[in-house]
Amino acid sequence: MGGLDEHRWFTEICEEGGSAFSLKLRGKLHEERTPFQRIEIYDTEFFGHLMVIDGFVMLTALDNFLYHEMMAHPALFTHPDPKRVVIIGGGDCGTLREVLRHAGVEHALQVEIDERVTRLAEQYFPELCESNDDPRAEFLFGDGIRWMKEAEPGSVDVVIVDSTDPIGPAEGLFTEAFYRDCHRALGGHGLIVQQSESPLFHLDSIIRPMHRAMRAAGFGDTHSLQFPQPCYPSGWWTATLAGKGDIRTFRETDAAAKPFPTRYYNAAIHRAALATPELLR
Amino acid sequence: MGGLDEHRWFTEICEEGGSAFSLKLRGKLHEERTPFQRIEIYDTEFFGHLMVIDGFVMLTALDNFLYHEMMAHPALFTHPDPKRVVIIGGGDCGTLREVLRHAGVEHALQVEIDERVTRLAEQYFPELCESNDDPRAEFLFGDGIRWMKEAEPGSVDVVIVDSTDPIGPAEGLFTEAFYRDCHRALGGHGLIVQQSESPLFHLDSIIRPMHRAMRAAGFGDTHSLQFPQPCYPSGWWTATLAGKGDIRTFRETDAAAKPFPTRYYNAAIHRAALATPELLR
Repeated sequence: MGGLDEHRWFTEICEEGGSAFSLKLRGKLHEERTPFQRIEIYDTEFFGHLMVIDGFVMLTALDNFLYHEMMAHPALFTHPDPKRVVIIGGGDCGTLREVLRHAGVEHALQVEIDERVTRLAEQYFPELCESNDDPRAEFLFGDGIRWMKEAEPGSVDVVIVDSTDPIGPAEGLFTEAFYRDCHRALGGHGLIVQQSESPLFHLDSIIRPMHRAMRAAGFGDTHSLQFPQPCYPSGWWTATLAGKGDIRTFRETDAAAKPFPTRYYNAAIHRAALATPELLR
Repeated sequence: MGGLDEHRWFTEICEEGGSAFSLKLRGKLHEERTPFQRIEIYDTEFFGHLMVIDGFVMLTALDNFLYHEMMAHPALFTHPDPKRVVIIGGGDCGTLREVLRHAGVEHALQVEIDERVTRLAEQYFPELCESNDDPRAEFLFGDGIRWMKEAEPGSVDVVIVDSTDPIGPAEGLFTEAFYRDCHRALGGHGLIVQQSESPLFHLDSIIRPMHRAMRAAGFGDTHSLQFPQPCYPSGWWTATLAGKGDIRTFRETDAAAKPFPTRYYNAAIHRAALATPELLR
């Protein structure tokens, strides 16, 4: 099999996995360098619009529902009564949209360091931004690490860390110091959920250290959820929960009766995502 | 990001998904054209040995455990007492190895059309062939479709269809006529499990037609299992069960007490694989 014509394909190499994933392009729609990173937008043949940051696939129109649903709904159906949600990162607004599907949420704050991510999402992924005018949504473009350091103790029910990989601006979001700040900001049944990369490639480099750091920061329990995410390395992804209370059970009746549509998440999928493969034990 | 040097990477393009998956190579170990197909063996940087048939990734040393465990254990823990197992395809012997881990299995027949696949697996994937000398194992190199047509009615407990994609020699394994032959060959609680491709790319082209054909062939119930499989297109894969009896429950106590090691499968993962994502409903 020959190589891929680099003008017709976008390719992301995953060095640590000795692998690469490519998407066939119709063309490049946009490219800019912000004070934080380089953002590219492509139109692909089958995955719809594609956002790339610093060479890494952030999301595609076709398969972002997997990631966004799994970043939002398991955490929100685990907390007994989530009213105040903070999203760190999440500039494409897809996680925010899912959070706002929960009628009980009174306030959802998105703290994204790079406003250009959100402005480009509004332009190229308008479906993810359809709840941005919801009066419960607030946008802060700034440093999530600093915001969490200064947050009022006990003022948050759920923290969702929807960031890029732990290199560059997101590095500080994978540290015990940050989790300690989250722990202080969270109320009594508070919990955090954070994207934690691939079980096949990042078990020892990211997933296990994240569990250790979260526990060291004071969280009584941590647990990784697994789900498919085709556009990310290996196609197999995790989100890790850390809670002050129980995070292995959830409001199953509410999840089964959810009044909003999803394409992946449901109560059975929530239970399924909690199952731990032998190699993650 | 530039293109991939085709001498350092093996790339499989998935035309119907507008995507490609590449593995970084150390080198090519073998290549031959058999009467049935072209087989290549590579050594990769991170995934270990790689077998490619007609340009499609068949398996890698790193991640085949996902596929082989999920092709064998859910089906075998679903049947109440599986003694006689037939594997159609499965020439790499990885599914056979998992089947033979079940002490109750008395006879496991592997019907692979291309003996060279098995001979190359013995050489390049010896770990998958470690049970080939088991006295319960039998090898037949021939046409699985014809074998099933001529099988004695009620003589099989579990049929595992571990084939290539439904183009080329495997095409006839995705038909109502073949499922009808399986149905006749199976005993009272008999069931079939077949690899059924990606929920993201093949829902309408393969998964749904497979369910229809299996039901038309007489199976009372069908259900798709989902699991990660990084080296296959989208990294998200399915195996579809069709049974004469119940296939949505399984011998959970036996699965939880399984006396053999696995790296992905366990009783919780079995329940998880049975969960149906919203888009597959």
